Amino acid sequence: MDTIRLAIVGYGKIARDQHHPAIAGHTGYRLDAVASRNAEVAGVANFESLEALLEEGPEIDAVSLCTPATVRTAQARLAMAHGKHVMLEKPPGATLAEIEILREDAQRCGVTLFASWHSRHAPYVAQARRWLTTRKIQRVDIEWKEDVRVWHPGQAWIWQPGGMGVFDPGINALSIATAILPRPFYLVDAQLQVPGNCQTPIAASLDFIDGVNVPIHAEFDFRQADTPPIWDIHVETDDGRLTLTRGGCEMLIDGQSQGMQEDAEYAGLYERFANLIHQGQSDLDVSPLRHVADALTLGYRHTVDDFVE
Amino acid sequence: MDTIRLAIVGYGKIARDQHHPAIAGHTGYRLDAVASRNAEVAGVANFESLEALLEEGPEIDAVSLCTPATVRTAQARLAMAHGKHVMLEKPPGATLAEIEILREDAQRCGVTLFASWHSRHAPYVAQARRWLTTRKIQRVDIEWKEDVRVWHPGQAWIWQPGGMGVFDPGINALSIATAILPRPFYLVDAQLQVPGNCQTPIAASLDFIDGVNVPIHAEFDFRQADTPPIWDIHVETDDGRLTLTRGGCEMLIDGQSQGMQEDAEYAGLYERFANLIHQGQSDLDVSPLRHVADALTLGYRHTVDDFVE
Repeated sequence: MDTIRLAIVGYGKIARDQHHPAIAGHTGYRLDAVASRNAEVAGVANFESLEALLEEGPEIDAVSLCTPATVRTAQARLAMAHGKHVMLEKPPGATLAEIEILREDAQRCGVTLFASWHSRHAPYVAQARRWLTTRKIQRVDIEWKEDVRVWHPGQAWIWQPGGMGVFDPGINALSIATAILPRPFYLVDAQLQVPGNCQTPIAASLDFIDGVNVPIHAEFDFRQADTPPIWDIHVETDDGRLTLTRGGCEMLIDGQSQGMQEDAEYAGLYERFANLIHQGQSDLDVSPLRHVADALTLGYRHTVDDFVE
Repeated sequence: MDTIRLAIVGYGKIARDQHHPAIAGHTGYRLDAVASRNAEVAGVANFESLEALLEEGPEIDAVSLCTPATVRTAQARLAMAHGKHVMLEKPPGATLAEIEILREDAQRCGVTLFASWHSRHAPYVAQARRWLTTRKIQRVDIEWKEDVRVWHPGQAWIWQPGGMGVFDPGINALSIATAILPRPFYLVDAQLQVPGNCQTPIAASLDFIDGVNVPIHAEFDFRQADTPPIWDIHVETDDGRLTLTRGGCEMLIDGQSQGMQEDAEYAGLYERFANLIHQGQSDLDVSPLRHVADALTLGYRHTVDDFVE
């Protein structure tokens, strides 16, 4: 198949640490350009903006948007109007409504649009989904707890509206749960802990049920200080207990490890994006973000101690 | 065409005031049963629950669910599993996720599912949509202001999570705007005023844009005391200014009234439901509720004076 000529838009930390190495390690891509206000990358054409790249740059096939969600929709629309395939970092938009506009645009422009959820490409996610297919699920417990000071130092935006607070990591858990569970589920109760000086929750306790009333409980917490993070999903079935731990890098059945692998999430994302382009398809699953919007709509907000970094 | 044998589930104020008269006035329906915990209706079969109605009741074709959103999804799923067509009061669910499950159920069960938005059936909504079709829209201003003490006396649930606060009437404005404007739009900024003793906003200021950057501004306010309510949508175009006022009961072009009619929203709803049933189609537009979820997700919450009824 033809090599995909790619540009990265927004060369910040996530692009440098994850996207660029994953692209460099995939034979199906050639990184030809970068559009970024604050960074230049050696060996490729550099532009200050997506507009300048589209106007003056080399011919490209696709763009990977690593900019903040608040500006990404306008950039995605512009790139698609120029016939470029688009990959979106998570979440696919700041609002659910704009994603529906992107969905229509992608169809009209005849390009691939890929809303990426990197955690779905953790090593054991696909295996967990297959293991669960043949079993009767009885209950699900999600624990996603980390120290915000360690994992999001100085990220003041996370406490602003749209920053999602503890749902910024929590949406990763939801992206895995929606991928491995066989049925869609919905929220029935949400309790949110919101620091008095913040707009978004520092912790959330969520109760979902699926279409056959299986309970799915999630605890998200940013206050996991002085202890290792917990990124676990436990699924009780009629034939054993599955645990996805370390964010999907290890899987246990009835407490026995099935193996542990290094994270290669972004390699998986780019493999998926290439397949979608070659098949002429899009993948725009909003379900993780929809659950977060439901939780922020339906959640009871308890005011807790101010957050001081 | 065959008469639709109908049951009302949840015979509260909205069922008594709006649904029952609209059904009685429509020749396409016969109200055969009511399922309600706290009310009996003369001349039809009465049951304490939907379960009892489905088990022991007369054969019916369709149910109209007038129960609160929090219990409606389970009832809709049960009715559809029994092959009944279902009409949902607004909003179609407490969460967006559950509505997607209902959508799949309706397809699988081969029944009509209708998410009703009564304000879309106000007298001048269809005419406004047609008038706007041929014009270039420059900006939209929505004003939806009423005295909560007059219009929602004693409705404490409105201040609880899921009660939506000022979005309970505001979603009516959004249901009209999404019906008359030619393009979908999305939220870019939301400022919410939340009483210190409440979970939901008493006022909201919203800025949307559509796909070609037309600004759409909305002001929702529950604090319209001692003055008449304002339920207005103004649309500036390249060829005149349209105003839908009185919630769609009057339309003005450049300030000149085009006529005023009595509200007949629920008659329109039941006409639409009958047409959907006879055509074998569903209508499950979540866009008004999605905008509310986006506003509660993205909105900046300002704490204001406690609300004391």
